[in-house]
Amino acid sequence: MKPRDGRQRVVIEDVTPQIDSGTRPIRRISGDEVVVNAAIYADGHDHLAARLLFRHESESEWRFLPLRELGNDLWTGSFVADKLGAWRFTLLGWVDHFATWASDFEKRVAAQIEPEVVDASTAAPPGANAGIQVGANAPEQNAAAQDVALALATGAILIREAALRARGEDAKRLKAIAANFQALSSEGKSFYENPWDEQLQLLMASYPDLAHATQYGNELPVWVDRERARFSSWYELFPRSASPIAGEHGTLGDVEKQLPEIANMGFDVVYLPPIHPIGRAFRKGPNNTTVAPPDAPGSPWAIGDREAMPCAALGADAAGDCGGHKSIHPELGTFSDFDHLVKSARRRGIDVALDIAFQCSPDHPWVKDHPDWFVTRPDGSIQYAENPPKKYQDIYPLNFETLDWRGLWDELYSVFEFWIERGVRVFRVDNPHTKALPFWEWCLSTLRNKYPDVIFLAEAFTRPHVMYGLAKRGFTQSYTYFTWRNSKAELQSYLEEITRPPVSDFFLPNFWPNTPDILHKTLQVGGRPAFMHRLILAATLVSNYGIYGPAYELAENAPARPAAGKSESEEYLDSEKYQIRQRDRNRPDSLVPLIAALNRIRRENRALQSNASLHFHAVDNPNLICYSKTTPGFENTILVVVNIDSFNEQTGWVNLGLDRLGISPHQDFLVDDLLSGAQYTWQERSYVALRPGVQPAHIFRVTRLQ
Amino acid sequence: MKPRDGRQRVVIEDVTPQIDSGTRPIRRISGDEVVVNAAIYADGHDHLAARLLFRHESESEWRFLPLRELGNDLWTGSFVADKLGAWRFTLLGWVDHFATWASDFEKRVAAQIEPEVVDASTAAPPGANAGIQVGANAPEQNAAAQDVALALATGAILIREAALRARGEDAKRLKAIAANFQALSSEGKSFYENPWDEQLQLLMASYPDLAHATQYGNELPVWVDRERARFSSWYELFPRSASPIAGEHGTLGDVEKQLPEIANMGFDVVYLPPIHPIGRAFRKGPNNTTVAPPDAPGSPWAIGDREAMPCAALGADAAGDCGGHKSIHPELGTFSDFDHLVKSARRRGIDVALDIAFQCSPDHPWVKDHPDWFVTRPDGSIQYAENPPKKYQDIYPLNFETLDWRGLWDELYSVFEFWIERGVRVFRVDNPHTKALPFWEWCLSTLRNKYPDVIFLAEAFTRPHVMYGLAKRGFTQSYTYFTWRNSKAELQSYLEEITRPPVSDFFLPNFWPNTPDILHKTLQVGGRPAFMHRLILAATLVSNYGIYGPAYELAENAPARPAAGKSESEEYLDSEKYQIRQRDRNRPDSLVPLIAALNRIRRENRALQSNASLHFHAVDNPNLICYSKTTPGFENTILVVVNIDSFNEQTGWVNLGLDRLGISPHQDFLVDDLLSGAQYTWQERSYVALRPGVQPAHIFRVTRLQ
Repeated sequence: MKPRDGRQRVVIEDVTPQIDSGTRPIRRISGDEVVVNAAIYADGHDHLAARLLFRHESESEWRFLPLRELGNDLWTGSFVADKLGAWRFTLLGWVDHFATWASDFEKRVAAQIEPEVVDASTAAPPGANAGIQVGANAPEQNAAAQDVALALATGAILIREAALRARGEDAKRLKAIAANFQALSSEGKSFYENPWDEQLQLLMASYPDLAHATQYGNELPVWVDRERARFSSWYELFPRSASPIAGEHGTLGDVEKQLPEIANMGFDVVYLPPIHPIGRAFRKGPNNTTVAPPDAPGSPWAIGDREAMPCAALGADAAGDCGGHKSIHPELGTFSDFDHLVKSARRRGIDVALDIAFQCSPDHPWVKDHPDWFVTRPDGSIQYAENPPKKYQDIYPLNFETLDWRGLWDELYSVFEFWIERGVRVFRVDNPHTKALPFWEWCLSTLRNKYPDVIFLAEAFTRPHVMYGLAKRGFTQSYTYFTWRNSKAELQSYLEEITRPPVSDFFLPNFWPNTPDILHKTLQVGGRPAFMHRLILAATLVSNYGIYGPAYELAENAPARPAAGKSESEEYLDSEKYQIRQRDRNRPDSLVPLIAALNRIRRENRALQSNASLHFHAVDNPNLICYSKTTPGFENTILVVVNIDSFNEQTGWVNLGLDRLGISPHQDFLVDDLLSGAQYTWQERSYVALRPGVQPAHIFRVTRLQ
Repeated sequence: MKPRDGRQRVVIEDVTPQIDSGTRPIRRISGDEVVVNAAIYADGHDHLAARLLFRHESESEWRFLPLRELGNDLWTGSFVADKLGAWRFTLLGWVDHFATWASDFEKRVAAQIEPEVVDASTAAPPGANAGIQVGANAPEQNAAAQDVALALATGAILIREAALRARGEDAKRLKAIAANFQALSSEGKSFYENPWDEQLQLLMASYPDLAHATQYGNELPVWVDRERARFSSWYELFPRSASPIAGEHGTLGDVEKQLPEIANMGFDVVYLPPIHPIGRAFRKGPNNTTVAPPDAPGSPWAIGDREAMPCAALGADAAGDCGGHKSIHPELGTFSDFDHLVKSARRRGIDVALDIAFQCSPDHPWVKDHPDWFVTRPDGSIQYAENPPKKYQDIYPLNFETLDWRGLWDELYSVFEFWIERGVRVFRVDNPHTKALPFWEWCLSTLRNKYPDVIFLAEAFTRPHVMYGLAKRGFTQSYTYFTWRNSKAELQSYLEEITRPPVSDFFLPNFWPNTPDILHKTLQVGGRPAFMHRLILAATLVSNYGIYGPAYELAENAPARPAAGKSESEEYLDSEKYQIRQRDRNRPDSLVPLIAALNRIRRENRALQSNASLHFHAVDNPNLICYSKTTPGFENTILVVVNIDSFNEQTGWVNLGLDRLGISPHQDFLVDDLLSGAQYTWQERSYVALRPGVQPAHIFRVTRLQ
């Protein structure tokens, strides 16, 4: 059937950025310039005009800015997203009859012959392809002038119509110009000067005729986060290990006392594994044994313990039941302690990040209060986590197909809201890929709309589609496959995938060289030198990274005994997941100075605070990897070379793409090594020699020599 | 807000093929297998199942076929589109709880220990990562058997539920199996055999639980054309030049008399420039002069002549006014002649294609009857076509912004329908890019829905976005940039773009080595040898091609004098657009034999009847281009080498991608040269020598040697 208005000749297509046909928001950071591109065209040769419409969800009207034609029907424009939350944009295109008229008019005026130039010999030969006989006879000159006269009348009509759309002084001026054009037209002169001027062009552009403008068929969503979403340095530690007194269960207060050290290392997110009471049923012992000694602290991810201790006895001011996701493990402290820690951190510009793990120990309050939120087996028992024949009897997974899914979703949502209301603005979500994706889609969008400054990190160690699917559904940042990308080829290929559109439009990587679950073989065999180069890679390749300490500072690398049927393990020996591990990060051989240096370099060099400019440069040694990051105008240009061999010195020649560094061809430049303090003069082709453990990398800041 | 059903855990994404978010149909040919791919995943590790839903627009219910999992969350499936017109498809995915149960069940059964095997030494060492203590004690064995028993009870529930969804015998069998499982479960044995069998699996798969299935959020459209849309060989000729009597204006009857020759050449579409009366006002003379001799026939694209001749005088049985798009030029013949021509062609399996040019000469009926369909200038005159300062006063372009756009659209639509009702099923549309795209979108989809076997060829010599935009809006085939792609690099790059998705999903190229408007420099300077190799390229690179004859057969290559200010011209000298040009295509040096051979080769080799398999092979000489096309199972494999140098012999070595020819590495094979009749034994690396004008190309049919 016919469209509502068949006179909308303009077509708008291929609009970027968009994801999944605009069903998911693209991701930007507050202050970003959102650059929009599109193909805009119509039939024929008329001039077009177009504008970008955009607004924050809180605005009722569209704002607009002009789109600029690049050629070949491609148009571009941008707006600054300077507010957190949800934005939308779309495009409007229309035929600009006045611009078409003006362009033709210029040619008509030029086609007139200056009255003094008369030359019969310039008549075109017969058979030529010209439409009009160019000659100097009066009839032709009159024809050209008549063309101009007629065009002036046409222009007058367009200008008069614009005057009706205009207001105030502008309307008067347009009316006057129209009248002037009309008068000129009626004069029937034999030669016309061009009455055109730029003022008129600007005026007319201010009052376009949008009667038959085409609006792009979709409003494309953008989600804007705060700066910390894109630039954050995470430090993970177990509060129960944080006591300075040997053998004592650490508290939130102990964590608070470590804040100055953590701040000095330069971190801005302190991430705590779950701080809730730990289930007693089937509690795991050290090294994940199923039979635990009576004093085993258990795994913080087995959340439960409805009746650990009478809440009243602690004087706790908890809202809700004791035990579960809205409680604090009694040995960690009280809500007062928690509030104090959060405030203390905030004063230092540090976010406290909580670990949200939606699973339950058998003694979790939900098991008793909502047994229908779990799978019940035919014998009436609740289904524990399984991967037959393995059984994980300390964990009851939630059943997202429960009839009471609405109640379940509301309760899970309320867990986040509970801690948000207590001042938490960053969450690390455990195993999100084992909870229904529609739940995350609803929960995260609802939370982010209400609290647009909240950041969610997905621990999504899962298949690529699922990992990306979670990011599209609202997770601000995500763990990645970084741990398992160790060779140059693996790193380069992976980084190029995740730092460029389309992935970079919805996925913000967070690189962790280690986690409590993952001690990669590279670290196991490479020791302290490996810890150094993997840290440098994580901290400079991407703008969000984290380490699990103090295990990392101390280059702890003893793996657990392999599981039955396997030859290797990525688990830590005596893992802190199952026992308290007290450490002194200020040991002489600690990596704290390197960590502090890296975080300082990140803070002082804006180029390292985003990923879009990441570019790999050629090096003739597979053990050396070279890459750069720059600010858009090259004001801050960082060049990194890393030796990824943990054992041997490696040397080689880098071949730089100078244009990616904002340097002219064949130009020398200065580089300041931000790690060593040295300064060099470098060229397009330069030599490097790097020694593991001693000087595993260069982090250069580039200065042009002119 | 929450979704209607939050228990739909499955996600369906990245569905192909689709264009522009499913707003435009992808294109297939009747009988094609439409292969669909998607990413389908959910949280956790449950097994999934999925199906492809599809239907022709005439069907009220979806049909479905299972989708197959490829791994990494990728699924694929297909359906055969065996009917012309509009189809739709979508996808359904759900959690297959029974498949999950079965997979786990198998492991549970395997975890049992055979009653005779008892070995205490196999107990796992402490600290291992195993969940369950594997041992030989009766308690563990009982535990494993109890697992199985419980699982049998769970299975019984799933099977019983399926029985409720089943019918007849199937329902009874499922009920019986469920009862059996339940009984086994209650027996409390110490060792269970596996009661599983494939019959049960098939039964359960027939009655899936779709209660919480996810349906992909879009129904994706497919448009299915008849075979000729993808495989056609076009011959363009001017009827007025078709008389065998010198100086006489040709007729449709003369065209009909040429049908046997045209059929012998192997063409299946005979395309006629506009057959309507030609306007008298501002009629062009030979070589496009604006002052025409009184007997000038004018350009067939200047459609008009309302009062050419009293229609009654001709005894015409025309419906509607004399003159205009629903009339036949009186000197070409009557509607009887036309109907006869169409029938005669159809008996030979040939389509007559008409040229539809929506523009008017000043004396076209529309100018008088609908002046508002044109742009009127302030002095009351109608705006002729212009590109200031050039004037084309013989053409009045239509105004698609007219208030009466609905009336205009209806009239233009009716022109197509008029000729369709007279038996025309193929149209070549002149300059579609100068008519509003929304018009084409409505007109073509309405026509194609009513007459799904109609084919539209767009003469869209315009910018890429517009050319592709027209194809997306319903043009079956399109002219291309082929004429201006002459070097090997240009050809290869362009062909790869247009024969692969996404372009190949909406764009069917039709290659014309010449048209009445375009005599490329390659032909001008290369002469007959150039005509040969350009013809071979067009006829073998793509499955739709055409030539303008007899100018092509006779290798006519004299260009017109260049236009003012230009050094070259792509126009023909004494162009047939402006004068009658009688020729004898059976002249001794005519290319008719080569044309006939090429069309025979195309007809006899299915590989040449589509483009998807086109693959370029390396040749170490830039003047030699080598490519292959095959049927999917390599039953028909064609290998082409062309010398694109019009003057010199060229030699070189081809390096074939044998896998693209269905040949094993290092295997010899036979090639039959379908042009010369020779046969050779070829290898992966083979030598060619080709001489322009004598043997400019090999067209090999490949036979494997085993």
